[in-house]
Amino acid sequence: MELEHSKIGRYEFLAEPFHCDFSNRLLMGHLGNHLLNAADFHSNDRGFGMHYLNTINKTWVLSRLAIEMEQMPVAYDRFAVETWVESAKRYFTRRNFMVQNTKTGQVYGYGRSIWAMIDTETRQPVNLLEVRDGLLEDYVEADKPCPIDKESRVKMSNEAQPVGSVIARYNDIDINGHVNSVKYIEHVLDLFPLEFYRDKRLLRFEIAYVAEAHYGDELRFYCETDDDLTYRVRITRSNAEVAEEIETCRCMLRFTDR
Amino acid sequence: MELEHSKIGRYEFLAEPFHCDFSNRLLMGHLGNHLLNAADFHSNDRGFGMHYLNTINKTWVLSRLAIEMEQMPVAYDRFAVETWVESAKRYFTRRNFMVQNTKTGQVYGYGRSIWAMIDTETRQPVNLLEVRDGLLEDYVEADKPCPIDKESRVKMSNEAQPVGSVIARYNDIDINGHVNSVKYIEHVLDLFPLEFYRDKRLLRFEIAYVAEAHYGDELRFYCETDDDLTYRVRITRSNAEVAEEIETCRCMLRFTDR
Repeated sequence: MELEHSKIGRYEFLAEPFHCDFSNRLLMGHLGNHLLNAADFHSNDRGFGMHYLNTINKTWVLSRLAIEMEQMPVAYDRFAVETWVESAKRYFTRRNFMVQNTKTGQVYGYGRSIWAMIDTETRQPVNLLEVRDGLLEDYVEADKPCPIDKESRVKMSNEAQPVGSVIARYNDIDINGHVNSVKYIEHVLDLFPLEFYRDKRLLRFEIAYVAEAHYGDELRFYCETDDDLTYRVRITRSNAEVAEEIETCRCMLRFTDR
Repeated sequence: MELEHSKIGRYEFLAEPFHCDFSNRLLMGHLGNHLLNAADFHSNDRGFGMHYLNTINKTWVLSRLAIEMEQMPVAYDRFAVETWVESAKRYFTRRNFMVQNTKTGQVYGYGRSIWAMIDTETRQPVNLLEVRDGLLEDYVEADKPCPIDKESRVKMSNEAQPVGSVIARYNDIDINGHVNSVKYIEHVLDLFPLEFYRDKRLLRFEIAYVAEAHYGDELRFYCETDDDLTYRVRITRSNAEVAEEIETCRCMLRFTDR
């Protein structure tokens, strides 16, 4: 069958000055947003995106995201995000990303993600190979390399220490009434002092989304580390009605010396 | 003289899904970011932007910003920001904005801003009409309408009540080591509960930037209101070394019933 679109989508972005940190490099939260946008554009253009799923009461749910960057774009750099479906099984699909400077061709880094699909009424998982007669499978591109490790199972001991908390506010909440996936990245990176970022830069960020948090929830952050370069962070939610802490995300951060 | 560029710049943006709030409308902070980007592109393209100013140790300083929106773009709307210099005096210039749906032509709203220029070494104001022999004046476009009120002098009584505080963290800090202008907008909007936004929408937002805040500063928010639609917010900064609270911004918010 002739596909209407290429398997790999390519979308161009600008590292906007107000999206950069004190070192003039793009903030990881904003990069995460660009990857999610690229995923959204790619799937919408090919007929299995949110625009179509909304009409059949289904939705994509991001389960995991891993980003590993050799370098971060500097303010005003133009970069492209390429994205493609690496594999598609009944209950999850893998989508990868490549981030490239559009002028020099330099590859800044890669991303990996895992998505499930649910029915928005029953909240139950949907067999994503049945959507549009398995259209997603037609777009699987298994040969393009994504030379970073797959997401790890972030294992946490009971030694993780409480390191902060925030209340989910207006700007945190998306159209679904949930804390926006990108906001978790920002809140986790805000746990580290600015001084820390002067010596270190974030090489790899992984996040596993476990349960949704809502407006007014208190998000609590628990952190453990093996050395001064690798950190694991558990985020829990609780609120006035449900005081019990429920795990909402789990992250792994790997830094490198600048 | 023939100008190399038109006086009015026009830049297209997308209301990105993760930049929208629970009601699927673009968040004011992200709109503010788009306006500041448009200002930046317009001035850089015409030779009096930050790219040039960096080479002569000068910089633009945003003094005031007012945004008034009849409507906010919905997720995936494509919109254009037009921007132009309304006037240029020795120590400040006025720059206006129009926000328009690119498909329907509908004007969503307008913005106004006031900018000064300083020397980055002495931190003293610079006569901006002397930069590049008054190039800025050549681009003044006094005739294009901007049918919203000019910024008001936000007058606050001593009745303003403390309504919250945040510590300036990694994601708040820009390349200059200051709290990013857009982040103040977000922090102020986070003072209002989500329930409030279900009945009301933000019609006009004004902010006057008074003094810079830095990493680790505690930002405290003081609010007063005449009715349930108009709010004035003072933001102060203080820290371990300087416990005295110094005003950093002053805002006015006008809401309207949805």
